[in-house]
Amino acid sequence: MDITVAVDAMGGDHGAHVTVPAALRFLRDNPDVNIVLVGLADALEAELKACKAQLGPRLRIHAATEVVAMDESPQLAMKNKKDSSMRVAINLVKSGEANACVSAGNTGALMATARFVLKTIPGIDRPAIASLMPTMKGQTLMLDLGANVDSTPLQLTQFAIMGSAMFGALKQKDAPTVGLLNVGSEEIKGNEVVKAAAELVRQTRLNFVGNVEGNDIYKGTVDVVACDGFTGNITLKASEGVAQMFSTFLKAEFTRNWFTKLLALAAMPVLKSFKHKLDPRRFNGASFLGLRGIVVKSHGGADEVAFYWALAQAVEEARSSLIQRITDQVQHELRHFESADAIDKSAAEQSV
Amino acid sequence: MDITVAVDAMGGDHGAHVTVPAALRFLRDNPDVNIVLVGLADALEAELKACKAQLGPRLRIHAATEVVAMDESPQLAMKNKKDSSMRVAINLVKSGEANACVSAGNTGALMATARFVLKTIPGIDRPAIASLMPTMKGQTLMLDLGANVDSTPLQLTQFAIMGSAMFGALKQKDAPTVGLLNVGSEEIKGNEVVKAAAELVRQTRLNFVGNVEGNDIYKGTVDVVACDGFTGNITLKASEGVAQMFSTFLKAEFTRNWFTKLLALAAMPVLKSFKHKLDPRRFNGASFLGLRGIVVKSHGGADEVAFYWALAQAVEEARSSLIQRITDQVQHELRHFESADAIDKSAAEQSV
Repeated sequence: MDITVAVDAMGGDHGAHVTVPAALRFLRDNPDVNIVLVGLADALEAELKACKAQLGPRLRIHAATEVVAMDESPQLAMKNKKDSSMRVAINLVKSGEANACVSAGNTGALMATARFVLKTIPGIDRPAIASLMPTMKGQTLMLDLGANVDSTPLQLTQFAIMGSAMFGALKQKDAPTVGLLNVGSEEIKGNEVVKAAAELVRQTRLNFVGNVEGNDIYKGTVDVVACDGFTGNITLKASEGVAQMFSTFLKAEFTRNWFTKLLALAAMPVLKSFKHKLDPRRFNGASFLGLRGIVVKSHGGADEVAFYWALAQAVEEARSSLIQRITDQVQHELRHFESADAIDKSAAEQSV
Repeated sequence: MDITVAVDAMGGDHGAHVTVPAALRFLRDNPDVNIVLVGLADALEAELKACKAQLGPRLRIHAATEVVAMDESPQLAMKNKKDSSMRVAINLVKSGEANACVSAGNTGALMATARFVLKTIPGIDRPAIASLMPTMKGQTLMLDLGANVDSTPLQLTQFAIMGSAMFGALKQKDAPTVGLLNVGSEEIKGNEVVKAAAELVRQTRLNFVGNVEGNDIYKGTVDVVACDGFTGNITLKASEGVAQMFSTFLKAEFTRNWFTKLLALAAMPVLKSFKHKLDPRRFNGASFLGLRGIVVKSHGGADEVAFYWALAQAVEEARSSLIQRITDQVQHELRHFESADAIDKSAAEQSV
């Protein structure tokens, strides 16, 4: 099946200078993918010319006259910029002209616009941000990474269900293992919201293994780690911080003097292979789950390689019929939860 | 001033086999420190004999007839084991016979017992667990790392005050910078508890810089990072997980074949220096803050080197008159907070 991706070509810190070359390279590598570049026609044409590329049936421009700034208020962007590259790209998913869209733009505006245009899947209260993380064993899907700062037990349960569906779809795995991020693996551990969520997730048909701790993410203890967006966002950024510190210190040791520099040169293939394994660019592309369409958010600072991987993520999701898989699994599970709202409310009251 | 440290010599995964040799080495390196080994007399005498060490004015045994197991219920341990090595070591701090105590035992039991025996400092609702973390710039003190799973805005404020006092005492720094861990640096970001906490911390005389994000911990953006124990514990463990994954992958690359092994041998001094810089053993020793006495928790799995560093942490705290510094700063700040309870309650109600 041919996949068409709508690219918010103006989004991100580098705009078309990154999105257009990445799109061109992606088209070369993937003959069954079409790309629609959405943005200011002049800017896109200039960039295509600079790249010596031609439009054609697999690559076209869809003009949009506005651009959402990286620091713009999501609400104002949504209200005032109805012809922004971001919004028009999402509109193409809504109308069915594209199977997915990718943007490196303002996260808040992208989420607000995507939610407004595409709406959530029946049974899902709020979308979540999900991303595959490198682990010692392979990859783990973690969500929510920051779409929601406060989550109810029922919302955490929805994250677990969507994560399970997504991991199953992307990795062709039946019944992926699911864990709730917590401060200890015992049932009695954790805050009231997580304890109540564990009760609910236990009632689903998910392959729920119980609580997992922070280090379990990178051990690869489970396929899917569900958490609230506050904890998820801080954990993700702290992890990036540790990785950055590690790289910086390693580099500093290898560039201390001429002898260590010589060693670094000799060890280059080893260091390169190591670097490749954990290259954050290969993990670029966070998915907005729970919407009636595929929206992938690239890091704002993404370079061409990183944006390429965000495109790959979007295509993989479209190929695996992700939205249908999530919709089906949510329907299947939520049938058991007619009284869930009541449970949820009583848990929230207890937690005060 | 001579410092006397009471050591729960039976605590941890390895008990006296680790605590006794670490204590002996610490005594050799620090001539103005005395150590009281608390535990089963037979076991301690046997270990001392194996180490060819003698008791004397600087090293004595204080017998305790019970040991708290690593997986024992904190409540049951406190109720039933009144002569445990852990409890007796804390009693020595309470009675003034020791200036500090160190245990690698059951964290929950240590916290419950320390709180019961020593009581909290006036103005502090609940103790917090604090630890220095390595950063790109030096060290940052982070708390709470897991003593509290749910924290109110007022408790977060107390953590910020205690952290500031501790960093100031240990690093001889006036007005250390303080940040609240959050999902974004803007004031409008975060969950309701953190937003309300920021309001309160802004009313103190702390050098409060506002919100910091997960990666700021390792950038060393601020001296003190305050957060609730749920987020802190997960962030700490995830960070350890990333560091572990990094080390494992680096090692795997350098042991892939005979050529890379040869390279590793040549690069040994560089790799060793790198490893030393981030050696988690050097950061062993988490402090229970907010009690009327110094209690340092070592990792349960600590080896001799790691336990040595926990002893060093306890001695440094005793030397810098940490408890007095915290008590003074809490009194100083909390004078502004007579109505804090009211603010706190209204914030908690809003967050439902």
